[in-house]
Amino acid sequence: MTRDQITEQIVTARLTKGLTWQQLADAIDKPVVWTTAALLGQHPIPPEPAGKLIEMLGLDESVVPVLGAVPMRGGLPTAVPTDPTIYRFYEALQVYGGAIKELIHEQFGDGIMSAITFSVDVEKKPHPAGDRVVVTFDGKFLPYDWTAAPGS
Amino acid sequence: MTRDQITEQIVTARLTKGLTWQQLADAIDKPVVWTTAALLGQHPIPPEPAGKLIEMLGLDESVVPVLGAVPMRGGLPTAVPTDPTIYRFYEALQVYGGAIKELIHEQFGDGIMSAITFSVDVEKKPHPAGDRVVVTFDGKFLPYDWTAAPGS
Amino acid sequence: MTRDQITEQIVTARLTKGLTWQQLADAIDKPVVWTTAALLGQHPIPPEPAGKLIEMLGLDESVVPVLGAVPMRGGLPTAVPTDPTIYRFYEALQVYGGAIKELIHEQFGDGIMSAITFSVDVEKKPHPAGDRVVVTFDGKFLPYDWTAAPGS
Amino acid sequence: MTRDQITEQIVTARLTKGLTWQQLADAIDKPVVWTTAALLGQHPIPPEPAGKLIEMLGLDESVVPVLGAVPMRGGLPTAVPTDPTIYRFYEALQVYGGAIKELIHEQFGDGIMSAITFSVDVEKKPHPAGDRVVVTFDGKFLPYDWTAAPGS
Amino acid sequence: MTRDQITEQIVTARLTKGLTWQQLADAIDKPVVWTTAALLGQHPIPPEPAGKLIEMLGLDESVVPVLGAVPMRGGLPTAVPTDPTIYRFYEALQVYGGAIKELIHEQFGDGIMSAITFSVDVEKKPHPAGDRVVVTFDGKFLPYDWTAAPGS
Amino acid sequence: MTRDQITEQIVTARLTKGLTWQQLADAIDKPVVWTTAALLGQHPIPPEPAGKLIEMLGLDESVVPVLGAVPMRGGLPTAVPTDPTIYRFYEALQVYGGAIKELIHEQFGDGIMSAITFSVDVEKKPHPAGDRVVVTFDGKFLPYDWTAAPGS
Amino acid sequence: MTRDQITEQIVTARLTKGLTWQQLADAIDKPVVWTTAALLGQHPIPPEPAGKLIEMLGLDESVVPVLGAVPMRGGLPTAVPTDPTIYRFYEALQVYGGAIKELIHEQFGDGIMSAITFSVDVEKKPHPAGDRVVVTFDGKFLPYDWTAAPGS
Amino acid sequence: MTRDQITEQIVTARLTKGLTWQQLADAIDKPVVWTTAALLGQHPIPPEPAGKLIEMLGLDESVVPVLGAVPMRGGLPTAVPTDPTIYRFYEALQVYGGAIKELIHEQFGDGIMSAITFSVDVEKKPHPAGDRVVVTFDGKFLPYDWTAAPGS
Amino acid sequence: MTRDQITEQIVTARLTKGLTWQQLADAIDKPVVWTTAALLGQHPIPPEPAGKLIEMLGLDESVVPVLGAVPMRGGLPTAVPTDPTIYRFYEALQVYGGAIKELIHEQFGDGIMSAITFSVDVEKKPHPAGDRVVVTFDGKFLPYDWTAAPGS
Amino acid sequence: MTRDQITEQIVTARLTKGLTWQQLADAIDKPVVWTTAALLGQHPIPPEPAGKLIEMLGLDESVVPVLGAVPMRGGLPTAVPTDPTIYRFYEALQVYGGAIKELIHEQFGDGIMSAITFSVDVEKKPHPAGDRVVVTFDGKFLPYDWTAAPGS
Repeated sequence: MTRDQITEQIVTARLTKGLTWQQLADAIDKPVVWTTAALLGQHPIPPEPAGKLIEMLGLDESVVPVLGAVPMRGGLPTAVPTDPTIYRFYEALQVYGGAIKELIHEQFGDGIMSAITFSVDVEKKPHPAGDRVVVTFDGKFLPYDWTAAPGS
Repeated sequence: MTRDQITEQIVTARLTKGLTWQQLADAIDKPVVWTTAALLGQHPIPPEPAGKLIEMLGLDESVVPVLGAVPMRGGLPTAVPTDPTIYRFYEALQVYGGAIKELIHEQFGDGIMSAITFSVDVEKKPHPAGDRVVVTFDGKFLPYDWTAAPGS
Repeated sequence: MTRDQITEQIVTARLTKGLTWQQLADAIDKPVVWTTAALLGQHPIPPEPAGKLIEMLGLDESVVPVLGAVPMRGGLPTAVPTDPTIYRFYEALQVYGGAIKELIHEQFGDGIMSAITFSVDVEKKPHPAGDRVVVTFDGKFLPYDWTAAPGS
Repeated sequence: MTRDQITEQIVTARLTKGLTWQQLADAIDKPVVWTTAALLGQHPIPPEPAGKLIEMLGLDESVVPVLGAVPMRGGLPTAVPTDPTIYRFYEALQVYGGAIKELIHEQFGDGIMSAITFSVDVEKKPHPAGDRVVVTFDGKFLPYDWTAAPGS
Repeated sequence: MTRDQITEQIVTARLTKGLTWQQLADAIDKPVVWTTAALLGQHPIPPEPAGKLIEMLGLDESVVPVLGAVPMRGGLPTAVPTDPTIYRFYEALQVYGGAIKELIHEQFGDGIMSAITFSVDVEKKPHPAGDRVVVTFDGKFLPYDWTAAPGS
Repeated sequence: MTRDQITEQIVTARLTKGLTWQQLADAIDKPVVWTTAALLGQHPIPPEPAGKLIEMLGLDESVVPVLGAVPMRGGLPTAVPTDPTIYRFYEALQVYGGAIKELIHEQFGDGIMSAITFSVDVEKKPHPAGDRVVVTFDGKFLPYDWTAAPGS
Repeated sequence: MTRDQITEQIVTARLTKGLTWQQLADAIDKPVVWTTAALLGQHPIPPEPAGKLIEMLGLDESVVPVLGAVPMRGGLPTAVPTDPTIYRFYEALQVYGGAIKELIHEQFGDGIMSAITFSVDVEKKPHPAGDRVVVTFDGKFLPYDWTAAPGS
Repeated sequence: MTRDQITEQIVTARLTKGLTWQQLADAIDKPVVWTTAALLGQHPIPPEPAGKLIEMLGLDESVVPVLGAVPMRGGLPTAVPTDPTIYRFYEALQVYGGAIKELIHEQFGDGIMSAITFSVDVEKKPHPAGDRVVVTFDGKFLPYDWTAAPGS
Repeated sequence: MTRDQITEQIVTARLTKGLTWQQLADAIDKPVVWTTAALLGQHPIPPEPAGKLIEMLGLDESVVPVLGAVPMRGGLPTAVPTDPTIYRFYEALQVYGGAIKELIHEQFGDGIMSAITFSVDVEKKPHPAGDRVVVTFDGKFLPYDWTAAPGS
Repeated sequence: MTRDQITEQIVTARLTKGLTWQQLADAIDKPVVWTTAALLGQHPIPPEPAGKLIEMLGLDESVVPVLGAVPMRGGLPTAVPTDPTIYRFYEALQVYGGAIKELIHEQFGDGIMSAITFSVDVEKKPHPAGDRVVVTFDGKFLPYDWTAAPGS
């Protein structure tokens, strides 16, 4: 079974078993965004937590080595997302992307926010005018740095 | 002059005058991400702050009514961004978008994070292993709600 | 079974059973556009109505939890639709989209029509020169509103 | 001057003169959506109303014959719109397009809603939970009808 | 079975049975272009002719209700066709499309040729320099007509 | 001046001078579809008719040699046309293209309709239910023929 | 079985049987480029040669009528080819396509090289600096010729 | 002036001066396909021939150093060419590309035809059934060869 | 089984057997990048090493002739890669591609780096600020060289 | 003047002045790949070196602040490059990208090669069978590391 086929099984099994992503994350003691992304095929899952998750979801143990391999990442079915919940983030990037770039450069200099030394958090915050979704992208600043391996 | 041509003038004038986005935002007493996005052509700018900004940047007053109109938004030159600083956010969406969607639904139910009742913040946070770029997307949760105007 | 596979089964089963969308909507006492969209995979269907629909269509009960999950939305097979019935709406957007945008801004100020606090209606209206299809898009106006969760 | 260049001039002139689309429509006694679409380059404008509009906007009279010609229609800069106000309609088409198609067929039989014998209306309707944007697409039903010119 | 799967079966069955499209069209007393398009999945086929065609092709009767439903139209595998026979029509549109548009407007005024009240004919005409393929697109002229349902 | 710039001038000049395509075609005694296509930049125009057309349109004589060169053909601004008048032909190709291909093969064998030994005609035909646009694509049948130059 | 599925079987069977394309072409006494293209799904194969080829490849006889039908042509998986051997021809078209067009027009006048009355040859020619691949595209010149069927 | 602007001037100047590509090639004693491609912006032109060509075309001498630089190659305005003369080569690649690949591998082994150690020839060959365009792509065979620089 | 299906089996079998790419490369005494690319479907694998690899991976011997055929190359699922590890190389090409082109021309003259007489190396090099990935693209310089086969 | 317009001037001025990229890099004592990329608009250039370069190239001093700003990066005109020299790197990525990804993971674990803490080198290396272009991509390994700013 390929990783894509395993992901498809995970998605259906979770619903049938009635498990929340939070329960799955708690069972392996990992952040919930990381766990969800990993189960959706975006991160390798080491053998031990993979074993626990597989057991909870009722899948076959033979998938554990495949879950442990680094996957081909990139989970959206179209270059421009069409699902409204995901699209809103793309829209924010269309509208505020240029400004975010300018301000990262103004505050830090030339460089980027790493998407590797990186974490994401999704929080529910109350607000008198209605609850708010607060999503935090938190990545190490990496300055453009022209370095080569010694002796290269 | 169209809004695009004014944006181009603003970009060059700011550099020539040596002004920071923060200084421009402070002058009109608005959040810096909003101000930067607005000056990059993504929000209308009311006449009073527009007047101040135009004066600081040394542009012609005739652009004020055009700055005041709601622009055609969407500021990136390609559907998939190629600038590395902006691309990292698109990459995070490719890798974590599915997980963010699942968790918004798990925590809030069916709906979306508004990108309209919405704010963005860019912060520099110190970390022993290197400063971090923390970008917060903060939008009102909107549940799918099948309503019609009365009498429709 | 994934949601897409279930949708495919629903489409065929409805035709074989000779059921109308209206009959299915009446059976669960929901608006017909909402019901049709939901059965075509665009909305989660709560367990009770899902159970009734599944029974009417003769499908297996095991699909109920999958129908209850929030789906990956976005139902058209191509970015620009090719089916003539659907294309006419895209064409109207190409021809009148700019005007609709200008008039929303003129009447309401800067903001959008929500597609979440939203309903659609399809009606048949008689006209001396031939019956008319009247499709109403009815969404709450959301003004651009720069707000953050308290304490963010 | 091409029609595109004239449209660009109209957009700027309207803002500078401080005219609303409603005022322009009233001056030529035409529906406001039609007038706005026409001034944005999507419909030909007959010489008489064109003359009045040109005068109000302070443009040169030589553009009148170009405004009177049938334009190359299709006003959005990208195949998938990026402006949030316009995108919401595209999103509604992605989510509800399949359902609208099914219901047109259920209510009318095989055919389409014309986008030519057609009108659009944008209305502001009050609602206790916030004003609503109600956009009505109203087109003649055209049944698929296999006819040929006599003698063909 | 979905409509696409039925179409695939029809294509193979016709070849194996050695039936021409003309024979199939004659059997149900319908124009041959319409019949061919319908069997290729572009039109609904009413139960009676569908029954006859299914019998001639040796397919299962259970497909009749699916053939009777309005299909999702649009039969080409790519936006720009690659098959040479079909491409030539696309090329003619690239080269002569602008001229056809201008002349429809010059002869009829602003409007379009309907593709719904419409028929196509394919004929073989002799010519001293070689037989000619004559394809006639024959559609009702629809003038742009801004009408709304009464009471809308 | 490039051919594209000349085409743009022709389009505006014709409107300003109030000339019809038919008048231009009559003046050079050529079919009107050919003349219109040629003036829109799709065919070379020999010096003599080019001279007459240029004079009628009031353009500079220096464009004659450029009009006489074979142009880079392909006149539509997008791969999938967005103008409704032109789109209907593309739609007909989407819906009937497969059928036309099958019938050309059934009537003629393997091959194509030439788009080079080819003519197009646009006619207005009366019909009790409304005038019809009849567009005829008339091309020589070219059978697939595996030939090589002698001695190759 | 569809033509695509048959092509897939042919590709694998040829390798397993250890047959060269040349041997297959010799067996049916046809040019090797034609035979290879036909077996890859780009040309119909008449019953007699199809029978021989099917026997050599060990496939089922029931595929013969499908091989005899005119296929939907166009064999590359992406609009811009990614396989290096095929890409080089696309690159040559990018670099020399404009020049080839100009020289066809200079030597022949306005028209095209037919891709239907056409043959391709692939040859291996020795050269002191290394063997050369010589691919010859040989098509009848077709001048643009505005002709209609008599009586049209 | 950029190379693109110079190319545009060359194209117009050649027509105005009434020069053939062959005359330009003869004047610098180079193959005509190479000369045409170079003048269309696809190859650098050394100072001496560039000087002669510039003089014949009546352009300014200041363009000589720009003509001498290696250009950004790739001359077609769209990924899939729309001009019929160029498209036929793309079509041949769609139909015969797979076969050409197979036969290069059968005759030479794994590798490609170079598009760099390469020449193209366009010839007019008489044929009883009409003149033929014979275009020869002639490139050195390059076998896949896994080599590294010594000491790497 | 097609090559794609075999590749899929190889990917899963390697993980299940717990073999490294290095072990597989060592077993057939080939460079590790070449071996990995070949097993991922990008190079033909001669019968002897293919036999050894198939045995180690526990696959069926019948795949050996398919592994020995030259594959249709091009292994990325999208034109612009979305996997972050692969994307960084595409990004480097976006940012440094123009500079690399200029410097190849400055150092070597007009021509390219061959991707056929070519090797790739991936190395891990220590660096005080963190280990470095050093990827070397090493290809023969090929000058543009207008040559034809003798007698062509 | 925008950065793009300045880049265009730099490209032409360098050719007219007859300066090599190496000379420009030496003058500011920076690596030549970095300098070339920066002058082609991909990196900000600090005031001092910018001043020297501007003087050597004979440009106006007013461009110095624009050169000093972080540019919108991404220098290739199409998503898939068409220039042969640049395309070969894209091709190598298509053929070897999957293998490079696997080996980075095998040697380093899950993570990427940074394209920010990164350098590129272009070298000419002699080889008995012809000089070789050796391009080295040298980036810090970044392991996937789920970290957040303290207190986030």
